[in-house]
Amino acid sequence: MSIDLNADLGESFGAWSLGDDEALLDVVTSANVACGFHAGDPLTMRATVAAASARGVRIGAHPAYRDLVGFGRRFLDVAPAELTADVLYQLGALDAMCKAVGTRIAYVKPHGALYTTIAHHEAQAAAIVDAVRAFDPDLPILGLPGSTVLAAAAASGLRGVAEAFADRAYTPAGALLPRREPGAVIHDPQAVVARAVRLATDATVIAVDGSVVAVEAASLCVHGDTPGAARLASAVAEGLRAAGVPLASFVS
Amino acid sequence: MSIDLNADLGESFGAWSLGDDEALLDVVTSANVACGFHAGDPLTMRATVAAASARGVRIGAHPAYRDLVGFGRRFLDVAPAELTADVLYQLGALDAMCKAVGTRIAYVKPHGALYTTIAHHEAQAAAIVDAVRAFDPDLPILGLPGSTVLAAAAASGLRGVAEAFADRAYTPAGALLPRREPGAVIHDPQAVVARAVRLATDATVIAVDGSVVAVEAASLCVHGDTPGAARLASAVAEGLRAAGVPLASFVS
Amino acid sequence: MSIDLNADLGESFGAWSLGDDEALLDVVTSANVACGFHAGDPLTMRATVAAASARGVRIGAHPAYRDLVGFGRRFLDVAPAELTADVLYQLGALDAMCKAVGTRIAYVKPHGALYTTIAHHEAQAAAIVDAVRAFDPDLPILGLPGSTVLAAAAASGLRGVAEAFADRAYTPAGALLPRREPGAVIHDPQAVVARAVRLATDATVIAVDGSVVAVEAASLCVHGDTPGAARLASAVAEGLRAAGVPLASFVS
Amino acid sequence: MSIDLNADLGESFGAWSLGDDEALLDVVTSANVACGFHAGDPLTMRATVAAASARGVRIGAHPAYRDLVGFGRRFLDVAPAELTADVLYQLGALDAMCKAVGTRIAYVKPHGALYTTIAHHEAQAAAIVDAVRAFDPDLPILGLPGSTVLAAAAASGLRGVAEAFADRAYTPAGALLPRREPGAVIHDPQAVVARAVRLATDATVIAVDGSVVAVEAASLCVHGDTPGAARLASAVAEGLRAAGVPLASFVS
Repeated sequence: MSIDLNADLGESFGAWSLGDDEALLDVVTSANVACGFHAGDPLTMRATVAAASARGVRIGAHPAYRDLVGFGRRFLDVAPAELTADVLYQLGALDAMCKAVGTRIAYVKPHGALYTTIAHHEAQAAAIVDAVRAFDPDLPILGLPGSTVLAAAAASGLRGVAEAFADRAYTPAGALLPRREPGAVIHDPQAVVARAVRLATDATVIAVDGSVVAVEAASLCVHGDTPGAARLASAVAEGLRAAGVPLASFVS
Repeated sequence: MSIDLNADLGESFGAWSLGDDEALLDVVTSANVACGFHAGDPLTMRATVAAASARGVRIGAHPAYRDLVGFGRRFLDVAPAELTADVLYQLGALDAMCKAVGTRIAYVKPHGALYTTIAHHEAQAAAIVDAVRAFDPDLPILGLPGSTVLAAAAASGLRGVAEAFADRAYTPAGALLPRREPGAVIHDPQAVVARAVRLATDATVIAVDGSVVAVEAASLCVHGDTPGAARLASAVAEGLRAAGVPLASFVS
Repeated sequence: MSIDLNADLGESFGAWSLGDDEALLDVVTSANVACGFHAGDPLTMRATVAAASARGVRIGAHPAYRDLVGFGRRFLDVAPAELTADVLYQLGALDAMCKAVGTRIAYVKPHGALYTTIAHHEAQAAAIVDAVRAFDPDLPILGLPGSTVLAAAAASGLRGVAEAFADRAYTPAGALLPRREPGAVIHDPQAVVARAVRLATDATVIAVDGSVVAVEAASLCVHGDTPGAARLASAVAEGLRAAGVPLASFVS
Repeated sequence: MSIDLNADLGESFGAWSLGDDEALLDVVTSANVACGFHAGDPLTMRATVAAASARGVRIGAHPAYRDLVGFGRRFLDVAPAELTADVLYQLGALDAMCKAVGTRIAYVKPHGALYTTIAHHEAQAAAIVDAVRAFDPDLPILGLPGSTVLAAAAASGLRGVAEAFADRAYTPAGALLPRREPGAVIHDPQAVVARAVRLATDATVIAVDGSVVAVEAASLCVHGDTPGAARLASAVAEGLRAAGVPLASFVS
């Protein structure tokens, strides 16, 4: 029994820095690396891939809608064929950085509004699956348990990997409480660590109504772009190890 | 004895169409495919690669400065490490399209202002060579004979391939007459065909002063973005065949 | 009794040309000039404004979602405050071109997916109205009759101007038949001219079921980006004049 | 006798924050506001203009080469007519934000590589002057004393305003020591304050060889994008006031 910790990394762009990548890379086992469409200029991509590789952190492609100013956080009504090509483009671009560093892409996790859209949007979910299949059918897709994209991946013979969020509240149905709801994000570090341990050891989470809900996840997502985030991620990692849960990528 | 014909292709972008790709793909043996920085949205890239591959036309990566509005025709003073990463990014992006279609990149030909800059700019030429070497040291670089980039390629163990222009005037020293000079571009189709045949069979060109100059080139560049260009390219191809020169890629 | 003819213009971008602006500017009374977010580099904007002004054609700002590769044709879920700022930005940019030429913006017509979205999307419609009001409350907004944006404009004390499409089929309720429906676009020039005359003289259109529907419009939109479009626009203009309908901007 | 303090502001972009604008706006008398080409999304521009206006800080347009990823710090070989249009575009965009807030642009200071280029590049300097003249011939241009752009401004009847840098070393000829030279940037706060006071009260600076050089400047540039920068700017402002030099914009 082990669990993966993943975080979004390489989200600087040119003169603009974002996140505490160095600190997070010492904690996580999987790095979701921005591919240039929402963040991540080519030099940042190359440096991020090199830093992750040097620490043995697995590299995930983190493709997004083409929306720099919106950081990929805004839904864009892209036609499926365009979305497939957009994702292929980003996968290839990141793959070149991996080649230059002597490593390879280990998985794909779509970013931001694309991530939440393909949890339910059939056509865009299928477009993502098409892109991954065309690029490398051995790459797993990381997504929400029960999401449309993981179902589409499975139906296509791709491996889907489910992730959970230790710092997010869940509904009794096992869904994330929307961010706009009060209490949607859990800030107390001890509570977050406890939830992480429960997710990893028991595959459950305490929902907002106090009920215990099953949430099967092979990876936990931690955040790095807020003050104190790297410290929280570190606390989660230590809590898991203290509970006897080894941290390991879901990719062998 | 054979010669390659190459042309810039896939230079549409979104709603904007450019060039007569279908007609040119029936003529050339090598397609320099735009990689998104000066032209070529991902869907266009994929379609161009598919169309080239279907005809057995070799696919060259055509990376450029990041300058959509300037179509990559304006010098940009990029630092070498950034330029290397920019080119890696573009090579990878095109490679993904090739993978999706079941083919691969056969060579690299930088575009526009980058092409002319690395004919003399040491640092940027070295940056291009670094990118190609990091991506795939077996890929040849197509450039001007005598250019800094071909010298740097050779010094790094990469293959450099020289190209010539049948529709451009040459100085007695074997250099291209700058476009701003009168007579720099030759418009008479018969003259262009005759120059193509001489370049292919004799490795010489008649310079502006009437002297015969040696120009060794394994490829001839033809243009596709002006009215009548595809017809001229077709005439060149027919002229070469009529002169007994087979058209074939410089990549086996 | 007169009617305005408007068309989208200035939609080239850098090396990419689109539309037959010269021909259309000889026909229309109002030019919707792209402002850089979906098309229209600054030099094209300046040239378009100069050409329109030289012919006495009124200049409309044609702001869009920030989406060059999608030509502004894809819905983008922009937050209202961002959309207001995006539109202000584009209005100001076009205004500077007008200043340089000695003219001014006469109206605002949102482009593409933004245009269709604000026909029903309350928050984005309000964001557009806010932008126009902050920039210049005397500028009318051109839109679909009965649209949310025209209602919001009226409620804010802005002038809304309704437009109709002579080459589009209408439902019995007076709405445009969606483009994906068969027969949505009318290609027969004589039919288009007849519909334009009826719209201008009778404020009605024959709907797809043969019924006569009231469509009050102060402007007719003609297209310029397809082959033969400028000729069709010209036929509409001649048909209107022949029917005794003077062409004149809705702005005095 | 008074002096202006100017700083680059509004250089965030979407999710990326840069600089300590709030602190600097409490110190400076002139804000060089990014216009979207190197930094500054529309919402940031609007907020920056509003914050400056609320404090009575003058608003300068800070146009740049179109180069987000390079933050406008890389020379781009733009043709003059394109550069004029690019600058007009940015001036207009910022002007719209000013209109929305009830204020106006007070001056123009080009950014980054454009700033240093037009200190010597005749064609690009003339292009900037053309843009300002076409937009509003009453706007002064802020630049280096003795620069080509200030000469061109004067020749065109525009007002040029010279600025100096209290934290930069000067050559005996009165030029800035290039940044790559050792000692080019002065980090000791007391030294910087002393130099600011000397520049403001005596119009001189101690050059690297110890000689006293005349540097006439109506404005001092302070930086805000490094840690401690706002504190240094604040110290400069206090030092000037303590020396009896009132801080005031060069625009009445």
